[in-house]
Amino acid sequence: MITTRGYAAMEASAALKTYSFERRDPKDCDVVVDIQFCGVCHSDIHQVRNEWGGAVFPMVPGHEIVGIVSRIGSRVTRYKVGDRVGVGCFVDSCRQCECCRKGYEQFCDKGMVQTYNSQYYDGERTMGGYSKVIVVDENYVLRIPDALPMNASAPLLCAGITLYSPLKHWQAGPGKRVGIIGLGGLGHVGVKIGHAMGAEVTVLSQTLKKQSDGKRLGADHFLATSDPNTFKSRKNYFDLMINTVAANIDINSYLDLLRMDGTLVLVGVPPAPMTVGTFPLIFGRHRLAGSGIGGMAETQEMLDFCGKHGITSDIELIKIQQINEAYERVVKSDVRYRFVIDMASL
Amino acid sequence: MITTRGYAAMEASAALKTYSFERRDPKDCDVVVDIQFCGVCHSDIHQVRNEWGGAVFPMVPGHEIVGIVSRIGSRVTRYKVGDRVGVGCFVDSCRQCECCRKGYEQFCDKGMVQTYNSQYYDGERTMGGYSKVIVVDENYVLRIPDALPMNASAPLLCAGITLYSPLKHWQAGPGKRVGIIGLGGLGHVGVKIGHAMGAEVTVLSQTLKKQSDGKRLGADHFLATSDPNTFKSRKNYFDLMINTVAANIDINSYLDLLRMDGTLVLVGVPPAPMTVGTFPLIFGRHRLAGSGIGGMAETQEMLDFCGKHGITSDIELIKIQQINEAYERVVKSDVRYRFVIDMASL
Repeated sequence: MITTRGYAAMEASAALKTYSFERRDPKDCDVVVDIQFCGVCHSDIHQVRNEWGGAVFPMVPGHEIVGIVSRIGSRVTRYKVGDRVGVGCFVDSCRQCECCRKGYEQFCDKGMVQTYNSQYYDGERTMGGYSKVIVVDENYVLRIPDALPMNASAPLLCAGITLYSPLKHWQAGPGKRVGIIGLGGLGHVGVKIGHAMGAEVTVLSQTLKKQSDGKRLGADHFLATSDPNTFKSRKNYFDLMINTVAANIDINSYLDLLRMDGTLVLVGVPPAPMTVGTFPLIFGRHRLAGSGIGGMAETQEMLDFCGKHGITSDIELIKIQQINEAYERVVKSDVRYRFVIDMASL
Repeated sequence: MITTRGYAAMEASAALKTYSFERRDPKDCDVVVDIQFCGVCHSDIHQVRNEWGGAVFPMVPGHEIVGIVSRIGSRVTRYKVGDRVGVGCFVDSCRQCECCRKGYEQFCDKGMVQTYNSQYYDGERTMGGYSKVIVVDENYVLRIPDALPMNASAPLLCAGITLYSPLKHWQAGPGKRVGIIGLGGLGHVGVKIGHAMGAEVTVLSQTLKKQSDGKRLGADHFLATSDPNTFKSRKNYFDLMINTVAANIDINSYLDLLRMDGTLVLVGVPPAPMTVGTFPLIFGRHRLAGSGIGGMAETQEMLDFCGKHGITSDIELIKIQQINEAYERVVKSDVRYRFVIDMASL
């Protein structure tokens, strides 16, 4: 076994603190990654606080992991020692179901093995990226393009793919009007990616407070959702909207902003179910869809796209000792736009 | 003016009774239709009872109209006296907006002119098909295929297109698994059309009471939604589901029955908004969509498709004097599967 250190919650809602634990010795197809940076995702907080249920403690969170390969198993072919790699939201899947075979491992029928607060099919518990070392099968490891800095690339592993996947799938591109609801960790990467894909990008934010940021990130338009005129002027406007807001909003008002055959995609998870009217869907043949991260091949495609376009997350780099304070700030949306932990501080 | 007779509600929820009123004299592009039969749609009842708001009385309902052309305006080119024609849910639209130009007149930006309880852009009130005569612009008139009987074709004008449009749009066909939720006026036509398109059709009905009917109509499978095993055995199963039920059901349970990238389409309008969870949409990239009737060209396409495949509605023919009793039976789902009024009785 490999003894390592991390930051863990020992029980629900407890402050994270130093924790020693063991990783498995690398199997034939495993890669050992020395973690350099790990992004802080809002879902880390949901899980640590057991807001989605099913939390098992101690829990080492973190699924926006970048680092350097320090050791490889005997049958590893895709990576070598010294490679710059990433690990995202899951570290295994059944590899046999229709979803896995088609590259949608995130929707594996048997259930993907999440990077933390989960267990492998043989019962091994998973521990996340707020730690020094992780051991992962090479098929669930990604390559970080040379053109990108490591620290600001970390959030691409979750926030990046969460936005890239629906933008790609629903064909954001030239001539398409894309609305990004919420300019936070997810939304700000969506603006960058949507803009790079050639779409007309509009940010829909509560106020105009972040307007200059939005324009700098690549938004063509920036509208306040607190202004009723937004909902009049943009009626029947968008081909695609992506809701990144993890709070409950009046989804029907946004459905009315879609053009004929437009789609509103949910990537955030609000605490309560949505109240959806039938008419806002029927008129204009609108669609309300969900999208969750992406498969392995698509995640690599996203990283390569970001490498080509020089896209990373806007980050605030912190030491691991600042993590509990950072959580409070994430909950208050007080970060532009993603905390990334420098694991050298551990 | 043309004086005609119909059955009208004089106020909300009042019993329908004989009513004399006037139709406009035919304009250059108008067709005068002697109405032979008119279907009874559940939405007639909603409107008469002002359950959707905005009802204006007296109201002559009816938008599943078939009849014979008895007179034409000077510039009518598509129809001649004696032609078998139909009129559906709307009788005009702006003809200029993007939706109208693309053949989605039902989603006209200016608002389509509904066949009853509505008004033309010049203020003329519309009165529906529970009457002897109607005057309609030829562009909003449809041709009934010679192969089809008139009486059982009437419900195709609303129920038929309501199911044909989403089945066609979401590509029901060979190799596709289609679920029809609810076997009533809408659902039973959906089974026939989906089967004719070559899809595997499953009826999801509250009980197995209508199972033999379902199989006769063309369903490959018939499942009871009161049986919890239905929701286990059909998890991740359907490419497309169409919800025809106008009552509130647990939509999340049905979303879980969709395969990867599957779509659940709403065509019924339940009384209350739906409660929709985020996870049933995110897992499997599911979509919840709406669909409303169809455009003029698509409605003609549907009629021609039905002519080719010998599809009509299963009907119970009634006299106009039975309409109030028929309404009570529609509300209790006590009709197999659509009442059609024989207008010779008026």
